[in-house]
Amino acid sequence: MKHVVSALVKNEVGVTAHIAGLFAARAYNIDSFTGSETENPEISRITVVVRGDDTVIQQVINQLSKLINVLEVKDLTAKPFVERDLMLIKVSTSPERRHEIIDLVKVFRGKIVDLSHDDMTVELSGPEAKIEAFIALCRPYGITECVRSGIIAIPRGNTN
Amino acid sequence: MKHVVSALVKNEVGVTAHIAGLFAARAYNIDSFTGSETENPEISRITVVVRGDDTVIQQVINQLSKLINVLEVKDLTAKPFVERDLMLIKVSTSPERRHEIIDLVKVFRGKIVDLSHDDMTVELSGPEAKIEAFIALCRPYGITECVRSGIIAIPRGNTN
Repeated sequence: MKHVVSALVKNEVGVTAHIAGLFAARAYNIDSFTGSETENPEISRITVVVRGDDTVIQQVINQLSKLINVLEVKDLTAKPFVERDLMLIKVSTSPERRHEIIDLVKVFRGKIVDLSHDDMTVELSGPEAKIEAFIALCRPYGITECVRSGIIAIPRGNTN
Repeated sequence: MKHVVSALVKNEVGVTAHIAGLFAARAYNIDSFTGSETENPEISRITVVVRGDDTVIQQVINQLSKLINVLEVKDLTAKPFVERDLMLIKVSTSPERRHEIIDLVKVFRGKIVDLSHDDMTVELSGPEAKIEAFIALCRPYGITECVRSGIIAIPRGNTN
């Protein structure tokens, strides 16, 4: 089962490596890993998407919560939450067929952020399924480069 | 100086921990770290934002490029590039003052993704400075939770 684990940590050297290491030690492959400061530059939030057995994920969460620079850790998957992924994708296109990509961008409410003679870079955010549908539609044109942030997530309502 | 390091890696167990570990070993604090699969599920792209001396960053890049599961690594900072950050932010607001946040969301072209009686969750993407300006404007209302993906980036034009 897919789990979205969200950890609030002190922004200290090595904390990213330490947390990634805990997942690696159990031979989990990480679907995505994001870490960045919050509204407080001294505190970062790390979001890890991982697939695995509920019991073992819970063990990793227990281990994480014992680390000195981890302030809070939760598995968001247990309650309703909003998830978003961000992508920058560079798609090959001739000037004659450029309008086809522009139509896709409009439907998906993306943004064109760069344009050259033979390619176009699009910014798109949304749930994972939307991002993946857009990638599939761009594939026939040729994808030059694709970078995704991985999932960030927040609980719905005032359930904190 | 701020460096945006972008690495294309084989999507294997431990690669995230290994790369984060290389930065930690040199006692760098990482501003942000994102890793997620590309258009090819077997290949991930890791984007690390780090501040430090140009020569030492170059040494880390050289080390990274020697790792067996690293296919390509580049410092995007040397050439023009597009950078984007994604944020989900939950802001406290009474129903009477909700319209104030809605106005901010319109100006910043964000999206309201969740709403409860006394808070509102906003999705916003853009360059780092735009994200930070929005956080500053939300601060007086009270920020319940804030999660950012960290920067992802792509070179401008067909410079690959």
